[in-house]
Amino acid sequence: MRKFDNTTADTYAVGDVEVARWEQYQLGDLMPFNAMWYVVPPGSSSPVDCHPELELSIVVSGCAVVQGGDDSTEVEQGGGFLLESEEAHMVRNRSTEHPLVIFSAYWMPGQDAPVAVEGQAARV
Amino acid sequence: MRKFDNTTADTYAVGDVEVARWEQYQLGDLMPFNAMWYVVPPGSSSPVDCHPELELSIVVSGCAVVQGGDDSTEVEQGGGFLLESEEAHMVRNRSTEHPLVIFSAYWMPGQDAPVAVEGQAARV
Repeated sequence: MRKFDNTTADTYAVGDVEVARWEQYQLGDLMPFNAMWYVVPPGSSSPVDCHPELELSIVVSGCAVVQGGDDSTEVEQGGGFLLESEEAHMVRNRSTEHPLVIFSAYWMPGQDAPVAVEGQAARV
Repeated sequence: MRKFDNTTADTYAVGDVEVARWEQYQLGDLMPFNAMWYVVPPGSSSPVDCHPELELSIVVSGCAVVQGGDDSTEVEQGGGFLLESEEAHMVRNRSTEHPLVIFSAYWMPGQDAPVAVEGQAARV
């Protein structure tokens, strides 16, 4: 088992946003996606971003206001949102007190789909 | 953009644990992994589990005590843990008050690794 601690990860700034990419863990080919955490400070937003990778984000602390395409959606702690390839998006933290913390997995379109397993275990 | 709400997802019980698998969202091949949330009630544990898939878990609420192999590790909200293929594991919620909520992604070993992209954008 490997453990990953967002409070001690190496980060860098992208605008107001603090980003911790998982490349620092040197997982090689273990995962079929790349990953990161990012923190949007109170009252701030991520820069508008648009990239070929699909991106699945899970809110691990706070509440995200996500603008993607023509939609603006609130995603509460625990919830997730999936951005399509080349879908422009911006993530806003409406709280004036608490940081918004997000975990994201991202991958190029057309990667291998999951392999179905017969008689799969409970897997929890 | 698609949004996924853990508070309204369809769930079923595995022992004491409530599991919400993402197959219900019919994402087809969009993601190179399967996904679920699961909730461990206060004072309870998941059944011991062991499966061929690797599994990356992110704690979205509470604090997990994870037993995997010979290790027992605490993972706080926001943190993650990666279980190898066929690594037996059990997840315990030591809190007597608050549920433990976890998001997990899982995939078979040897799936495609992420494709590196030249000049990649900030991706937040």
